[in-house]
Amino acid sequence: MTPRPSLFKVSNGLATLGPDGAAILRLLERRIGLWAGEIGAQEFIYAPLQRVENLSRIDYFLNFPHLGTLVAPIARDQLKANYGNARELHSICCGHLADAEYALPSAACYSVYFDMEGTRLDKAVYVTTVQRCYRNEEAYTGLSRLWGFQMRELVCVGGSEEVQAHLRNFRGKVQEFMARLDLPVEVTVASDPFFDRSSARAAMQQVFPVKEEFVYGGSVAIASVNFHRNFFGEKCRITLPDGQPAFTSCVAFGLERWLHALTDRYEGDAQRILGALEGALA
Amino acid sequence: MTPRPSLFKVSNGLATLGPDGAAILRLLERRIGLWAGEIGAQEFIYAPLQRVENLSRIDYFLNFPHLGTLVAPIARDQLKANYGNARELHSICCGHLADAEYALPSAACYSVYFDMEGTRLDKAVYVTTVQRCYRNEEAYTGLSRLWGFQMRELVCVGGSEEVQAHLRNFRGKVQEFMARLDLPVEVTVASDPFFDRSSARAAMQQVFPVKEEFVYGGSVAIASVNFHRNFFGEKCRITLPDGQPAFTSCVAFGLERWLHALTDRYEGDAQRILGALEGALA
Repeated sequence: MTPRPSLFKVSNGLATLGPDGAAILRLLERRIGLWAGEIGAQEFIYAPLQRVENLSRIDYFLNFPHLGTLVAPIARDQLKANYGNARELHSICCGHLADAEYALPSAACYSVYFDMEGTRLDKAVYVTTVQRCYRNEEAYTGLSRLWGFQMRELVCVGGSEEVQAHLRNFRGKVQEFMARLDLPVEVTVASDPFFDRSSARAAMQQVFPVKEEFVYGGSVAIASVNFHRNFFGEKCRITLPDGQPAFTSCVAFGLERWLHALTDRYEGDAQRILGALEGALA
Repeated sequence: MTPRPSLFKVSNGLATLGPDGAAILRLLERRIGLWAGEIGAQEFIYAPLQRVENLSRIDYFLNFPHLGTLVAPIARDQLKANYGNARELHSICCGHLADAEYALPSAACYSVYFDMEGTRLDKAVYVTTVQRCYRNEEAYTGLSRLWGFQMRELVCVGGSEEVQAHLRNFRGKVQEFMARLDLPVEVTVASDPFFDRSSARAAMQQVFPVKEEFVYGGSVAIASVNFHRNFFGEKCRITLPDGQPAFTSCVAFGLERWLHALTDRYEGDAQRILGALEGALA
């Protein structure tokens, strides 16, 4: 099935969504927005870049430096020397860049924890946000493995029980919605890519599931529920009323991957996809 | 006036919008969405990074290489050597990065022209899109001068008359909307930062206005109407039915700058801002 450009086209891991693709994501976002309302989650639009310093604090460069996409301007001393008559450039040589103090996000919920750094909670906090995320991969595949993609999240920061209840709640809601869309999906226990496989944390997650994925077509995780224990609470000094590190969990939706699954399931027919979403929302 | 975090906070040219700030932008976007509907503009969600090669083709690195924000992963040969035990990093040394083949957009409408490269038009095309744009500046000021910001555009690609009529149409609509919001704004003729001041093109734009800005508070352009003549049509080989290069124009809205203006005008009172927007939309 070749999708029409009104749905999407993809080049080098970057997607352009046409009017039908945009309309489909709007309806999907309406469903998630209603869920956000049900749990009183507040919408934040976070800084679109994350500090290297903050990412380092949560062991990002220790665990997957290869996924990072760093950002930097051209170094000031290179501007005059090399760019006054710059024509037909294909790339900017790394030696001409300034050091990178920021990176593009690779997960939206990190921004929540960075933003809450040093906060002492009165009660559990529910936040929703969508961010352009980036993962530098060896190869990209259509909409299912992109360099840049949109991740919508519903995040809970609170006590251990609250953040686990958040996941149980959405595990059911998301499955029901997928059933209404007639999207066949398997729920699988996954290893959290956040934790190094060889570390004590990775061993720990084999004891109880920290990540479950909703997998379409055998290999494409279109949503996931993630329990981080008190990892981010500890790293970002977010504390519970008793002064202990807060727990966090998130429900994550890869928006372009939903578009992939819906396009595949409904044979690239935008009207059928929109109809299915409207039916499932009704 | 110190804004409340429910509206926004800013650090190093990057803004985080809280629930009130997000709600205000949603209402503003609803207004622009209605305008898009009136002219039959189709919504696109473009690739969030632009190729250095394409930017070079439109003379970007010739005219303002200093504004660019390039992106690159850590070079593969540096990963094992330097990041296996990476702790407490504050920046990634430019020498560890791969060459940058992509940049973050500094204007949303470039994506429209890159996407339409090589197209021959049957009739004028109207597109709307919003993109995270980035401009690397020497200094940043609140929401009015950000490194990263959201630019919403209404773009026309067609004949010279059509693209100029598009601007006349929106010059009036935008002014009327600002009056309904009781936002005092001056319309000023500006030089298009796209064209080098010393170039023949820059001289040309002194003959007839190519850019008018809607300026709040004496210095903050919150919207602009821009006539590019056939510059992008020529560079991106977009042609009219007669084979000549197409003309382009765009109406651009700096979303965070609107939030700045509204916050200033209504003294940081989110309820008054939301009320004013609802009134102006009614």
